[in-house]
Amino acid sequence: MFDYRRTHTCGALKKADIGKQVTLSGWVNRRRDHGGLIFIDLRDRFGLTQIVFDPEKDPKAHVIGEKLRPEWVISIKGTVIPRHEGMTNLKLPTGEIEVEVNDIEILSKAKTPPFSISDETIEVNEELRLKYRYLDIRRGDIADKLIKRHRAMLTTRQYLDKQGFLEISTPILGKSTPEGARDYLVPSRVYPGEFYALPQSPQIFKQLLMVAGMDRYFQIAQCFRDEDLRADRQPEFTQIDIEMSFGTPNDLMPIIEGLVKALFKECIGLDIPTSFRRIPHSECLERFGCDRPDMRFGMELVRLDAIAARSTFSVFTDQLKEGGIVKGFCVKGGAEISRKGIDDYTDFVGRLGIKGLAWIKYQPEGLNSSIVKFFSEELQKELITAFKMEVGDLVFMVADQKERANQGLDHLRRRVARDRGLMQPGHYEFLWVTDFPLFSWNAEENRLDSEHHPFTSPNPEDIHLFDSEPLKVRSSGYDLVLNGYEIAGGSQRIHNSELQQKIFERLNLTPEELKTKFGFFIEALSYGTPPHLGIALGLDRLMMILTNTENIRDVIAFPKTQKASDLMMECPSSVSRQQLKDLGIFVESREN
Amino acid sequence: MFDYRRTHTCGALKKADIGKQVTLSGWVNRRRDHGGLIFIDLRDRFGLTQIVFDPEKDPKAHVIGEKLRPEWVISIKGTVIPRHEGMTNLKLPTGEIEVEVNDIEILSKAKTPPFSISDETIEVNEELRLKYRYLDIRRGDIADKLIKRHRAMLTTRQYLDKQGFLEISTPILGKSTPEGARDYLVPSRVYPGEFYALPQSPQIFKQLLMVAGMDRYFQIAQCFRDEDLRADRQPEFTQIDIEMSFGTPNDLMPIIEGLVKALFKECIGLDIPTSFRRIPHSECLERFGCDRPDMRFGMELVRLDAIAARSTFSVFTDQLKEGGIVKGFCVKGGAEISRKGIDDYTDFVGRLGIKGLAWIKYQPEGLNSSIVKFFSEELQKELITAFKMEVGDLVFMVADQKERANQGLDHLRRRVARDRGLMQPGHYEFLWVTDFPLFSWNAEENRLDSEHHPFTSPNPEDIHLFDSEPLKVRSSGYDLVLNGYEIAGGSQRIHNSELQQKIFERLNLTPEELKTKFGFFIEALSYGTPPHLGIALGLDRLMMILTNTENIRDVIAFPKTQKASDLMMECPSSVSRQQLKDLGIFVESREN
Repeated sequence: MFDYRRTHTCGALKKADIGKQVTLSGWVNRRRDHGGLIFIDLRDRFGLTQIVFDPEKDPKAHVIGEKLRPEWVISIKGTVIPRHEGMTNLKLPTGEIEVEVNDIEILSKAKTPPFSISDETIEVNEELRLKYRYLDIRRGDIADKLIKRHRAMLTTRQYLDKQGFLEISTPILGKSTPEGARDYLVPSRVYPGEFYALPQSPQIFKQLLMVAGMDRYFQIAQCFRDEDLRADRQPEFTQIDIEMSFGTPNDLMPIIEGLVKALFKECIGLDIPTSFRRIPHSECLERFGCDRPDMRFGMELVRLDAIAARSTFSVFTDQLKEGGIVKGFCVKGGAEISRKGIDDYTDFVGRLGIKGLAWIKYQPEGLNSSIVKFFSEELQKELITAFKMEVGDLVFMVADQKERANQGLDHLRRRVARDRGLMQPGHYEFLWVTDFPLFSWNAEENRLDSEHHPFTSPNPEDIHLFDSEPLKVRSSGYDLVLNGYEIAGGSQRIHNSELQQKIFERLNLTPEELKTKFGFFIEALSYGTPPHLGIALGLDRLMMILTNTENIRDVIAFPKTQKASDLMMECPSSVSRQQLKDLGIFVESREN
Repeated sequence: MFDYRRTHTCGALKKADIGKQVTLSGWVNRRRDHGGLIFIDLRDRFGLTQIVFDPEKDPKAHVIGEKLRPEWVISIKGTVIPRHEGMTNLKLPTGEIEVEVNDIEILSKAKTPPFSISDETIEVNEELRLKYRYLDIRRGDIADKLIKRHRAMLTTRQYLDKQGFLEISTPILGKSTPEGARDYLVPSRVYPGEFYALPQSPQIFKQLLMVAGMDRYFQIAQCFRDEDLRADRQPEFTQIDIEMSFGTPNDLMPIIEGLVKALFKECIGLDIPTSFRRIPHSECLERFGCDRPDMRFGMELVRLDAIAARSTFSVFTDQLKEGGIVKGFCVKGGAEISRKGIDDYTDFVGRLGIKGLAWIKYQPEGLNSSIVKFFSEELQKELITAFKMEVGDLVFMVADQKERANQGLDHLRRRVARDRGLMQPGHYEFLWVTDFPLFSWNAEENRLDSEHHPFTSPNPEDIHLFDSEPLKVRSSGYDLVLNGYEIAGGSQRIHNSELQQKIFERLNLTPEELKTKFGFFIEALSYGTPPHLGIALGLDRLMMILTNTENIRDVIAFPKTQKASDLMMECPSSVSRQQLKDLGIFVESREN
């Protein structure tokens, strides 16, 4: 039998190997015939090596060489020889040599693939790529991303192990939680009519491990959420899940900064700063209009209420009287933006519900805009100072209710930055956002929601507001933001069972719900719980940033579509009547 | 606010630290009052440290110290002092010092736990331990096992990374497979009436990764099987899943041997041999009666057909005429086994369906047994030679159909070994069993089954028997056996789509089943598939062996009971009507 075991991969052979007898195995990438000589690029995940069939040297091998087609898997034995003068390819690590074949075995023939494997530049429809994921990976780009993901996971584990964290696996078959609407359910055969749920996160388990005294836990955890899928979500996603006891955010944040630093170094060879800025949530909203600002560029928002109130521009003054705000930002060099450009931006914020976009250009002859006339000369000077305007700049301003104004300006700020090339790839700006509110108001259901989750500890300084002004209570939650994306979120947890119970009650859980859903957890907290805190990093998002892709499917080996289906395996799919019978469940007929 | 952040863990302080001002945080383990002085063992996962409250030195702290109860979480500041003469405890790493408390904060009070945390020797009912798993872990024994599991997983990852394997995560939401009866199903909200299935193994995905050219893959993978639970099974279990391209078992086996060696070294500090014995499946059955023999002791089975046929013992001769066999093994020093002992063994094999257990003792005066008379002197000599009997030995023999005889003797051999103390803990004997049959006969359904799984390659030497005598075709499967347990199993895979299709047809899959279940996989193989092979190691079983426990639940942080329920979270559980409605499924009413 032909021994197909390789002496070298297809990326290994160099000038120094000339003269060696080698065995290579791989895929036929491309083939060229040159007056009797057949050249084939043999490919594997490590590279390409040119092999040559010479009819005069080995007619038998040459006959087989003539049959070879793209993507056939072959194994060859041959001698490493230098390439001819002028035929070297210095872009290829193996570009100075070729292998003269003296024995060959066809290991596996191949049908013509549905898209070219060897030419990565050909754009292929994503549905087709997903259906033939194994061929898409073979093209190289996805493979490179998966290799980086492997390295990132190993780096994470080694780093956290060194910091004293233990990786502990928690169950996939768990219990349906209050956010149950998004749980994937799993019918039980042993207990008909009852269900497990797939975890949306290992939150409860990791806190129980702290109650259990495990001190420092982590897990690269699979999590599941059955929701309408957005471009950057998958029904199953991965988080680097971390929890520690007897610490505070000041202990945890440097650990996470060190982890992120290690990942950037390992994956893209970049040294990032050792510690990141921190901004309280309220300040963040004021300065950037959102809680996950892209910090790669300035254009901070400026509150103009005091100036606008003294103007005669009724759009501004009326809005202020109604309790709204006036806010804007300065675009450096933006005076060059055309009327058409400004109209586009006006439409853009209009789609976000903002009725008008005011603008002023700072021309050499002074401020220029249809609304300048409403501002006295003194107010104009104040505007210039407030925005730190220079000649050639432009400011955008909106007047609206606070939330909408912030939202609109946040979107506009990012849109303008993108248009002006201020979102540089390779430029990374990290930011901790802290002091989130503990609760948010759920107007639809007329009750409080947890801003993070119900296990988040309130800021001890705000406990006195708990009953009187709950929306003013700050939590001890923190998010890590990178280039406009939330890449991690966590908090100090509640370690007191009475406080935990009080929070659940504040969230309007009925005593019945409380007991069935969290009774065991509140009980667990009552047996001696250390202060503890934690965080979870979104691995998929982090890998997207580290591999420079906007498509979450690029960093997952076998992703689902946005509609949560697997086009390759064709699932979800129907199952047999017997299977359903065993589980004691019926499926609603399609006709209903 | 009291700063509870530790300067040391409770296992860290030594004589050299005397005089230091320290902060310790942890659980109150035990408390002793000695004439005003209060001694408390403060506990965390790293150890115990004695702290002392002296009313004369710090009356305020002493007042708080008097209130403390077991399992309260406290933080103290104090000075490291030497223990009094005669009070040192050399069994404890911190046994030469104590900490004199001068400040204390109660971080969390504790209800009286349902069982003692500080006294590990107290046996606690397992149901109670599972309900309060977080307290059971706090006791220490489970925690130690979880720490070892963490170390084993990290060692596995570092080792396989060094061998060029990439860890690639495969989906948890997959497709129901032919062994669908054991699949956990997950209803889809987006596609009502359709289901995902949780993977019984990542088999298809890992092979697809080879088709994709990833070359070497591994994953510490969560797998799921919804079946009647035996003592050593859990609905979710973990395997170290490995696949490689362009290799043969001779390449893979040393890699696995190196992995197991690294795990034994890391977890229990033991150097095991660098390579393991290999025995073909048929020889293994002949010599040990099973395909996963415990090799820590001899007592190999001896086939006696030729001798028995010439005896006048009709039990033997009749059985041989009916196509049965006569087989036995020699127990060194077994002549000391009492008549009562032999009767017990006879009952034991009787429960396995074996009608009689023949025995012969080799006494100083010669062979002794009620059946000796049926054997001529020459045959007696032949028996002695066949069994390598010495004076003081005993042999057990059975006559039955081959399968039953093997099964009975295998069980008896292990039972006798256990009774005679031949299963030494700390003694590890590894064995590769190779050349399994490709098919087994499913008498119930009157068809062939795969012995391993349908992707296992036949031994090329036996391909000619494929149609004529399929049960004689050997596969290229291999199992790794340790002390009577199968700890890993794998095979060379089929890399030819036509052969794969033929196997599926041989297994009686209808063209319809074939297409819906494996159509995509057979197609994948047709686009150029490298020869590949793989293996999966049962991590749970391996950890049981490495932590010396017979209970699989001891090596899992949050295990299910044998009936697949979680006593702590109380799941599976019922879910809301709305959740079921969203999924378009009904639950069979209990009354039916």
